[in-house]
Amino acid sequence: MAYTIRVPSHGQTIAAEKKDILADKLQQAGVPLNLYCNKRGLCGKCFVEIVTGRRPDPGKREKFWLEQKDLSADHRLSCQYEVDGDLVVNVPVSSTHENVPILPSIPRSAVVPDPAVKKYYLELPKAEISSPDSLFERILTGLGAKSLKIPMETLKELGHTLKEAGQKVTVTVHRESQVLAVEPGNTLGQNFGLAVDVGTTTLVMELVDVESGRTLDMEAALNSQSRRGADVISRLTYALAEAKNAAELRELVLETLNQMARRLLLRNRISPASVYEVVVSGNTAMSHLLLGVPVETLARAPFHAVFSRLPGLNAREVGLSIHPHGVAYFAPNIKSFVGGDIASGLLAVRLADRSGHFLFLDLGTNGEIVLKAGEELIATSTAAGPAFEGMNISCGMPALPGAIYRAEDSGSIQTSTIGGSPAQGVCGTGLIDLMAIFLARGEIAPGGAIQKPTKKLPVAAGIVLTQDDVRQMQLACAAIKGGIRLMLRANGLSVEMLDGVFIAGAFGSYLNIRNSMAIGLLPRMDERRVMFIGNASLAGARLLLVAKEKREEVETLVQRIRYVSLASDREFQDYFIQALEFAGWP
Amino acid sequence: MAYTIRVPSHGQTIAAEKKDILADKLQQAGVPLNLYCNKRGLCGKCFVEIVTGRRPDPGKREKFWLEQKDLSADHRLSCQYEVDGDLVVNVPVSSTHENVPILPSIPRSAVVPDPAVKKYYLELPKAEISSPDSLFERILTGLGAKSLKIPMETLKELGHTLKEAGQKVTVTVHRESQVLAVEPGNTLGQNFGLAVDVGTTTLVMELVDVESGRTLDMEAALNSQSRRGADVISRLTYALAEAKNAAELRELVLETLNQMARRLLLRNRISPASVYEVVVSGNTAMSHLLLGVPVETLARAPFHAVFSRLPGLNAREVGLSIHPHGVAYFAPNIKSFVGGDIASGLLAVRLADRSGHFLFLDLGTNGEIVLKAGEELIATSTAAGPAFEGMNISCGMPALPGAIYRAEDSGSIQTSTIGGSPAQGVCGTGLIDLMAIFLARGEIAPGGAIQKPTKKLPVAAGIVLTQDDVRQMQLACAAIKGGIRLMLRANGLSVEMLDGVFIAGAFGSYLNIRNSMAIGLLPRMDERRVMFIGNASLAGARLLLVAKEKREEVETLVQRIRYVSLASDREFQDYFIQALEFAGWP
Ligand code: FES
Ligand code: FES
Repeated sequence: MAYTIRVPSHGQTIAAEKKDILADKLQQAGVPLNLYCNKRGLCGKCFVEIVTGRRPDPGKREKFWLEQKDLSADHRLSCQYEVDGDLVVNVPVSSTHENVPILPSIPRSAVVPDPAVKKYYLELPKAEISSPDSLFERILTGLGAKSLKIPMETLKELGHTLKEAGQKVTVTVHRESQVLAVEPGNTLGQNFGLAVDVGTTTLVMELVDVESGRTLDMEAALNSQSRRGADVISRLTYALAEAKNAAELRELVLETLNQMARRLLLRNRISPASVYEVVVSGNTAMSHLLLGVPVETLARAPFHAVFSRLPGLNAREVGLSIHPHGVAYFAPNIKSFVGGDIASGLLAVRLADRSGHFLFLDLGTNGEIVLKAGEELIATSTAAGPAFEGMNISCGMPALPGAIYRAEDSGSIQTSTIGGSPAQGVCGTGLIDLMAIFLARGEIAPGGAIQKPTKKLPVAAGIVLTQDDVRQMQLACAAIKGGIRLMLRANGLSVEMLDGVFIAGAFGSYLNIRNSMAIGLLPRMDERRVMFIGNASLAGARLLLVAKEKREEVETLVQRIRYVSLASDREFQDYFIQALEFAGWP
Repeated sequence: MAYTIRVPSHGQTIAAEKKDILADKLQQAGVPLNLYCNKRGLCGKCFVEIVTGRRPDPGKREKFWLEQKDLSADHRLSCQYEVDGDLVVNVPVSSTHENVPILPSIPRSAVVPDPAVKKYYLELPKAEISSPDSLFERILTGLGAKSLKIPMETLKELGHTLKEAGQKVTVTVHRESQVLAVEPGNTLGQNFGLAVDVGTTTLVMELVDVESGRTLDMEAALNSQSRRGADVISRLTYALAEAKNAAELRELVLETLNQMARRLLLRNRISPASVYEVVVSGNTAMSHLLLGVPVETLARAPFHAVFSRLPGLNAREVGLSIHPHGVAYFAPNIKSFVGGDIASGLLAVRLADRSGHFLFLDLGTNGEIVLKAGEELIATSTAAGPAFEGMNISCGMPALPGAIYRAEDSGSIQTSTIGGSPAQGVCGTGLIDLMAIFLARGEIAPGGAIQKPTKKLPVAAGIVLTQDDVRQMQLACAAIKGGIRLMLRANGLSVEMLDGVFIAGAFGSYLNIRNSMAIGLLPRMDERRVMFIGNASLAGARLLLVAKEKREEVETLVQRIRYVSLASDREFQDYFIQALEFAGWP
């Protein structure tokens, strides 16, 4: 016997059989129902209004949620509703999930929140002599769970918690396999996470409401490890110089991260005990140093990381001050020199899902290049040096207030600084603009020589580019350009065949595409195919925090990627030398 | 195209298709092949001799094992062999698994070893710049594993271990999901576990080679908690009297267990670092106290245990001195007063697998009765008091050397003592024999009164039963008898309908069935249907240690069991009072 379900709110008419579960049918038909508890009747999020049709007596838990949500008596949990006749139902907006945008600049990068950490509120029946299930077994039954891990401490407090709370508790569960907390009373809605990009230079942290997927607030800070070396190589060298150094680097970054978290939580009046998960995205060296994993094998030939994929770690063991049983997930590293930050970025732009050929570039001290050539994913890294981050440049500085981030030539050189404050130096994007300007003016020859007897190029009051600065930029650009050209050639692709180029990294949206193409950093192509994605590592971390299935996706992704070593490629030397000339290409 | 595989060694002829895996076909045909590594070609245990048929070049790992095992060049790993023609194969005994008997007294209780902890020896390829997989990823690949957890400490040592060991390591894996250890070199064969019965009175520990399933050695000791109370109730009372007491009880039992383990390991020249798992079986109170879980809810109405099923715990966190990342598994508790010791026992006798009606009795201070009535499993517990353990009896003592464990009446009373030493007291089985003798002689009336003016019954030099002793035995027997009768009646069964009775507990095989029936402790029935199974709790622990699939089995089992509370059953009072009469039944 077939029935018909009409859903005017979503313009759907669905065929169903007797005993079908309403939520299943709505889901199959594409209605974006929020099935947070996976149809266990626990979360109260999948209510629909039964406009016409049978309205069976609501169950105990259903009644509780009807009251809590102040819904009319016509509402029923769709995951508990068995079809038994024709139906007209209305799916309220509050029962649907909103997609959360991950990278605002990329329309296809939105996700349905389905966090790894979920909370369930239980009102357990009074304990009776005649039904002597253990306390933990009663919670398992309440959750409809077969078996769960539980921290020893939580287990030891269970009797006390349940008694104090009159058997009303909120249980926080990680990946439906591990209890993280049993809190007295109803603490639904207090479920937060931190997404962190651990960059070599900068640390960025977002405070996220993991249930809605929304970012509540954000903090950025310099990686205080910088005082022990500006770039990855000097950081690794420092770590290996003395036994205590690695521990010092670990403490430096942890201290800053914990300060950032403290500020975020204070500002938003959230207790650290309501933060159950941190997702960290960083390059291989940063993740090893943060975890205190020795970097010997990473720093010395044959350059092997100790780990790439790690299962969830205990946040306390990692050293992060969130809920004592909270979890830390690290975006998996791809290979020795292509880390979790790139994996996160690839995930954020959905590179693997796209059909066609794409380039993904992260332009920093270590330039990472990932090529999607049809179904193949190939990654490489190329040592650009720290010029793009404003380092090793006489007038260089990171992209901080006071940095010239943009320059234009209207007869004289016009500069803009971050925050509008007086110019203190030039950051990466500003340097690229200046190179393009001086090249166009002929004040720098394509070979890189400053065409002035002083060998100096004044930019603004007290800010001057030297011949050495130009050489640094030349080397940095050549490393990227040479890498891209070799990767394309080795995979039988030309620039024209590329469907798009994603540019991640500190440059953000300030990078001037035309100037980048003019100096040869980027290949010449339709500008609309070049997408700045900003801090894609952070976006990926947020995605991993908010949508747990993305973790399997990224772990599979990193295993799919083939690595090509430029250092051991003889041809690369040729490409690199050719690329030293400042010139547009192809 | 169909081929024929002849296996003269096992009298089999098997049909196969091209590309079938030889191991699969042999396994399906019932050849007891040892497929230790789950057909991943890792363990080298599934070699067969190809008598006639194609012999493809052996793989690298296959060659390694051929050499290690000193097998002829005609041998191939059956899990790596694709059928491609008719075959005649010989399955050597070394490639089959032996069943390990669990309870020697019960023929159907044997099991194929398939431990939770397995070891794999890997010779990893030399690390190359051009294939920069991380060290841990290389191990995952070597193991053919998708993803594994690894302790942070192990991860931190990984670089060092691999380098020192020249990339040759033995990886210990728990349940194919968690690395416990990465050891330099080949440590196969060094894989041990401890099976422990934590009784209220006695602790028994077996040292087991988990790969063969064989028990190597055994230790027993008094539970040193006894000094704080002879039985569970007084132990719980003590634990609740002062805050520090529970911790003291925990330390007492842990100290003894660790001493026992130390003695076992020293005696067998085994390092604690080669012991990766402990399985603990004990009653609810013992497991709570051992884990330091508060016993308030267990000791006070409505008497709820805190936990029943627990996932594997870290042995170090539990306080057991084995490998630092070793695991402790606790046999799941059934209900408040029916603990993991009973669950283990039921598992050991395969109660759930048997068709028919069965009784399972554990006769101790707390008498546990489990009835299998058709498909139903019903458990109860009845407070027998400590008389069966020789406690609260003027001349009583536990079943230790010097205890009268057997008595016969050949005109005068003949007694046997444990160890043959001079009689120091009487243990449970001795008391039952004495009751039967004095009843038969008419020196005790069926109502329990001693028919002598002195109200004393001399047994041996200096050993005399008092009227109070008889009353204690009368109460203990009535608790069991009343419980059995009520359980049978409530489930529509009579004694004649029982297919068997299993008797577990300290009584072991010393219990005299005829005497037990004469005093009414056991129902009168064909003696061959009564099976003494000794320490079934320990047998179950060994089973759980040696065959990992038994853990799911026992966890499912405990959830299936319905509990009946005798304390809250009005009818039980009648049954109990009726049962006070010393008399055979039905
Ligand atoms: S999906 Fe959670 S109550 Fe229906
Ligand atoms: S089953 Fe392990 S090698 Fe075949």
